[in-house]
Amino acid sequence: MTDSVEPQAVSAAPATGAAATRAAAVGRARGQGKRQRLVDAACQVFYANGVERTTLADVAAAAGIPLGNVYYYFKTKNDLIRAVVEARLGEARMMLAWVEAAHDGPLDRLKALFEAFAGQSAEIARYGCPQGSLCSELDKLPDGPGLAGELMRLPVDWAERQFRALGRPDARDLAIEVIARYQGSALLASTLRDPDLLTRESARVAAWLDTLGA
Amino acid sequence: MTDSVEPQAVSAAPATGAAATRAAAVGRARGQGKRQRLVDAACQVFYANGVERTTLADVAAAAGIPLGNVYYYFKTKNDLIRAVVEARLGEARMMLAWVEAAHDGPLDRLKALFEAFAGQSAEIARYGCPQGSLCSELDKLPDGPGLAGELMRLPVDWAERQFRALGRPDARDLAIEVIARYQGSALLASTLRDPDLLTRESARVAAWLDTLGA
Repeated sequence: MTDSVEPQAVSAAPATGAAATRAAAVGRARGQGKRQRLVDAACQVFYANGVERTTLADVAAAAGIPLGNVYYYFKTKNDLIRAVVEARLGEARMMLAWVEAAHDGPLDRLKALFEAFAGQSAEIARYGCPQGSLCSELDKLPDGPGLAGELMRLPVDWAERQFRALGRPDARDLAIEVIARYQGSALLASTLRDPDLLTRESARVAAWLDTLGA
Repeated sequence: MTDSVEPQAVSAAPATGAAATRAAAVGRARGQGKRQRLVDAACQVFYANGVERTTLADVAAAAGIPLGNVYYYFKTKNDLIRAVVEARLGEARMMLAWVEAAHDGPLDRLKALFEAFAGQSAEIARYGCPQGSLCSELDKLPDGPGLAGELMRLPVDWAERQFRALGRPDARDLAIEVIARYQGSALLASTLRDPDLLTRESARVAAWLDTLGA
C-alpha cells in the first residue's frame, strides 16, 4: 500500500526547509531505485518473452511493484521500451569501455568483443542476442526501430574505429562483416538451440582477424 | 454470406453419385484456394508487423475472408503459424532448387543464393529477412522455434553440401559463416534502414567465395 502511493506522497509532503529537501531527496532516490527495478525487470522479460508478448502487468510482477505504481514512471509501454533501449545502450557502452580498458591493440579488442558475446552463448542459444532480437522486433514497428538503431550503430562504429586503427581502408566494410557474423551466429545459435555454434564462430573470427593484422 | 458458410455447405450438400463427387471436389478446390489465400496473407502480415502483433482478424481482413471462416481452416493462431512456417519452407526449397537448376558449380550456386537474398534488399531493409525475423520471434516461445528451426537448418545444410562439393573439409563451418553473414547483414540492413549494406555484403561474400575456390 505504501508502495503504490510513495512517489505521490513525496511531492505532497508538508515538510519545509532542510527537512523537506532531505525528504524529497530520499523520495527521489527511492523513486529512482524503483524505476531502475522496473527497467531491469523489463530488460529481462522483454528478452525472454519478446516485447510484444509482454504487458506492463508482467513487468510490474517481475519487478515486484504494484501495477498502479508503474504508470507513475512509465505512462505507456512505449515509454518503457525507450527506457529499455537506453539501458541496453548503456550496457553496450560499458562493455566496449571495458574491452578498451582491458586490451591495448585493436585486434585484441575486436577478438575480446566477440569472445564477450560468445561468453553469453548459453543465454543467446535460448533467447537470441539481447540487442539483436530487440532490434529485430522493433524493426517492424510502423515508425521503425527509432533509438534502437543505435544498438547496431554503436558496435559497428566502434569496430570501424578499431579497423581504422589497424590502417585498413575498408574499415567500415570489415566492421559490418564482424558485427553481421556475430548477429547472424547469434540467430543461428538460438534457432538451432546450439551454444557451441557461437563458441566455434568466435574462434574462427579470431583466426580471421589474425590474418588481417598479419 | 455464401463465403462464410461455404465449407460446411459442401459437406452438407444432399447430392449423390457423380454430381456429389464433382461438387465435393469443387468445394475442396475452393476451400484450398481460400486456405492458401489465408496462408499467403498471414505470411505477408506476419512479415510486415510481426507474429505477436497480428491477430487472426488482421489475417482475415488481409485475405478478404470473414473471420468466422478462418476458424474452419485454422482453429488457433498456432495452427496458422505452423502453416506459415511450412509455406516459408516451401519458398526456401523452391529458391534453392532454382539456384541449383540455374547454376552448375557450387561456387556459382553459393554466390547466386546470396545475390538472390540481396535482390530483396529494399524489403529486407524495411522488415528484415522473412525467414530470419520469423525465427527471431519464434525463438522466444516457451517450447522453442519448433518447425521454424528448419528455416535455418535448410540453407545451412544446403550450403554445407556446396562447400563439400568444393572439397572443403571445413564445409560445415563455412556454411554457418555464409548464412550467418547473410542473416546478420539482413538485421543490420533493417535496423539501420540501409538496403545498400546488403548489396555491398553480397559483393564482398562473392569475392570471399572466389578466394576459397581458387
